[in-house]
Amino acid sequence: MISLLPRTFALLLVFFSVLGPKSVAAADRPNVVIIYADDLGYGDLSCYGHPTIATPRLDRMAQEGQRWTDFYSAASVCTPSRAALLTGRLPIRSGMCAEEPRVLTTQSPTGLPHSEITLAEALKDVGYATMCIGKWHLGRPVDYLPRSQGFDEYFGLPYSNDMGWIRHPEKYPGLDPKADYYAGPLIRDVTVLEPATDQRLLTKRYTAEALDFIRRHKDRPFFLYLAHTMPHVPLFRSEKFAGHSRRGLYGDVVEELDDGAGQILDLLRELHLDRKTLVVFSSDNGPWMIFHEKGGSAGLLCGEKGGTFEGGMREPALFWWPGTIKPGVVRGMGSTMDLFTTCIKLCGAKLPADRQIDGVDLSPALFGTGDSPRDTMFYYRGKKLYAVRHGRYKAHFFTRQAYGKKALTEYEHHPPLLFDLGADPAEKFNVAAQHPDVLAKIETIAAEHKRGVIPVENQLEKGFPPERIPKVKTIQVEH
Amino acid sequence: MISLLPRTFALLLVFFSVLGPKSVAAADRPNVVIIYADDLGYGDLSCYGHPTIATPRLDRMAQEGQRWTDFYSAASVCTPSRAALLTGRLPIRSGMCAEEPRVLTTQSPTGLPHSEITLAEALKDVGYATMCIGKWHLGRPVDYLPRSQGFDEYFGLPYSNDMGWIRHPEKYPGLDPKADYYAGPLIRDVTVLEPATDQRLLTKRYTAEALDFIRRHKDRPFFLYLAHTMPHVPLFRSEKFAGHSRRGLYGDVVEELDDGAGQILDLLRELHLDRKTLVVFSSDNGPWMIFHEKGGSAGLLCGEKGGTFEGGMREPALFWWPGTIKPGVVRGMGSTMDLFTTCIKLCGAKLPADRQIDGVDLSPALFGTGDSPRDTMFYYRGKKLYAVRHGRYKAHFFTRQAYGKKALTEYEHHPPLLFDLGADPAEKFNVAAQHPDVLAKIETIAAEHKRGVIPVENQLEKGFPPERIPKVKTIQVEH
Repeated sequence: MISLLPRTFALLLVFFSVLGPKSVAAADRPNVVIIYADDLGYGDLSCYGHPTIATPRLDRMAQEGQRWTDFYSAASVCTPSRAALLTGRLPIRSGMCAEEPRVLTTQSPTGLPHSEITLAEALKDVGYATMCIGKWHLGRPVDYLPRSQGFDEYFGLPYSNDMGWIRHPEKYPGLDPKADYYAGPLIRDVTVLEPATDQRLLTKRYTAEALDFIRRHKDRPFFLYLAHTMPHVPLFRSEKFAGHSRRGLYGDVVEELDDGAGQILDLLRELHLDRKTLVVFSSDNGPWMIFHEKGGSAGLLCGEKGGTFEGGMREPALFWWPGTIKPGVVRGMGSTMDLFTTCIKLCGAKLPADRQIDGVDLSPALFGTGDSPRDTMFYYRGKKLYAVRHGRYKAHFFTRQAYGKKALTEYEHHPPLLFDLGADPAEKFNVAAQHPDVLAKIETIAAEHKRGVIPVENQLEKGFPPERIPKVKTIQVEH
Repeated sequence: MISLLPRTFALLLVFFSVLGPKSVAAADRPNVVIIYADDLGYGDLSCYGHPTIATPRLDRMAQEGQRWTDFYSAASVCTPSRAALLTGRLPIRSGMCAEEPRVLTTQSPTGLPHSEITLAEALKDVGYATMCIGKWHLGRPVDYLPRSQGFDEYFGLPYSNDMGWIRHPEKYPGLDPKADYYAGPLIRDVTVLEPATDQRLLTKRYTAEALDFIRRHKDRPFFLYLAHTMPHVPLFRSEKFAGHSRRGLYGDVVEELDDGAGQILDLLRELHLDRKTLVVFSSDNGPWMIFHEKGGSAGLLCGEKGGTFEGGMREPALFWWPGTIKPGVVRGMGSTMDLFTTCIKLCGAKLPADRQIDGVDLSPALFGTGDSPRDTMFYYRGKKLYAVRHGRYKAHFFTRQAYGKKALTEYEHHPPLLFDLGADPAEKFNVAAQHPDVLAKIETIAAEHKRGVIPVENQLEKGFPPERIPKVKTIQVEH
């Protein structure tokens, strides 16, 4: 027996390297927790410079781990952003973006196509327990809910929390005609628990579910996707956080998210899982500033949710895995799509080989062995490529207001606007004239990228009255 | 002898409490180092959220100490701001502010009045070695230089680094007519060392002087006021920092300041002085944004250097004193004027009793025993009170562009604009109509404050041609 051990060990190695999807030993596979806020702006955490929102737990997470300065969601609104995170692909590849509707509606007949491979599916394939908690927004029909996309369990609201809004309370007996009513259905797995849940309790209940899931799976690898409903307008927080923040209601809401994240990290420490769990905190898109002080802040960045300036898509991003992740501030580029590729590699799962994957493996930057391999970011508005960042430069081919009446006019720039995001992160000073070479390079990248995008069936436009798709006027601007 | 000791000790206690300025035991008196940047914006450090300026040493200082979110200089331009820091008094009380010139010029015949008591004088009185390094800007005549204001030693430029600008190089033989020449004189004590110093070496040389001063005084209490010339435009950095930052030249300059601050903290640790030295890092006013990417960023704040919106006067502020200062983020209000009062109390010096002092003792907030006692901040433009903050609310009686042609028009608001700096730190949403009580309270505070200001001789206007003082047009705005 003793003499056979080395050979058995060697055979096992061969077995894993040939048949196993990756050579990551099962014991080394980390748990993965992604905490995803909704509409949280780049400048809304204390560790990103907000003066009046106190986020001591996330600040500590940043100190113990990494705080990324140039991390992007793949879209400026909910549905495409979430599709990209879970598939590692730009939303244009899965048909999950459109001019109108910009996100799935309560009437949408489908959702994320079943042909897409989600991170949950990939990790489940290699033995991970998987759960989605919170806002889904990738399909309301029962066969498009998380259970159909690789998640063993689901608990949350299937779409945005303003979508069950009762527009005419005066038509309902017993309702105060002057009040707002949000009838978001709370679902467990595929069953509606509460047709109109009390949103004040959502953050608290999501956190409790997350803690429970972690406790139940402390002895096996797990993937938890905790997609908070907050701080998307309308804003709600539990009684404990009423008046908690100097920032008012918005601050209360963010501080409750901070507290929830802290509870999760505490539990991981308590269960001795901290050194084998990767925890990521980020947000789906920029702040919803049309709601004034009920919306967040993009800090020094220009733009907001819905637009392709930095404020619309650059997000807070914290990575935590004590003992493995090298603490510090990371200024390389990253994207939520990279979470797909990075986690698949780390967890020994299989990267889909039959389709274009836009995510890259961020491991070198996370472990301090090298730079982030991401050098390019594409900024879409609906199905149209508006801007491209390559290295420190970003070219805007089109610009447009995020919301409001003016949002039906887009400006096509000749030559494109060019900003040096290193020297000018706020996108104030057009340097196109000084860098024709950079512009030419980015134009080539954009053209190549567009050639590589295979047309697919659009999911958002399904069931949407074509006559309600607005005409957008394009104005040519010569510079 | 033995039996006499307790009595001697008791007598000594009586002696110190009656005759000594304060009952702080000599051994407990901390050294004080104030590092003061020039025109550094609220958003320009990595720990205040800047994405592309890397300030790892100041970030660590913030982590080991306190990072204040609501800390103010007492003016939005150099001279009055520095007068306030060193006297603990609003510049209006010392005659160190004016509509024009806004700062002392190279032609000004005086400077900070000798009747003012500076922090250096107060600390020197109780045995501190004192040194000023860097930009002075409180008087160019020899009897107004730092040596006449309580500093044992001086090394630096007497005013801003753009003030020796040679406007017409074509008139000088040997000078490139297309180049910029800045002829800032470098002074040691009262002697001009170099009539036109190489500004690329200033930060490096200032830091070296600071390290030398600390080494020379390691065995006795010292006060070092290190007022960097940078990042005031024109920007210069040493060869080592050329191309150091993603943020370009401005970033290079700030990263060299960061490096210098780190060297000072390292030396304090090496000499075992870290646990008996209070180090403060701040800036004199907001970023000079008229210089585009050569100017800094106020982060999410509105406004810039020269104006009374938050970006003009709210500053980064770090406090470091390992073992004594309670680490964390402090959201109470503070001001550079408070450094005067706080240091005088901590160092057992004497607080002037014959004049109005505007500084308060921040010790409760620094030591974690209570909140900052500061609840009000006055925002002057020249000699005119433009705005008042009380608690979380700020009322603007007047607003005005910081620079440019439009800066000759001021707007007088009826009622004043009111911003809730807690919920709305970017001063976007006027809430005057919702809070008439708050407005009335602030108007009372402003009126009382103005009654308490004793007219004094103005120092800035001396020698300035009255015909060059521009007429400002006031436009009444009804809301």
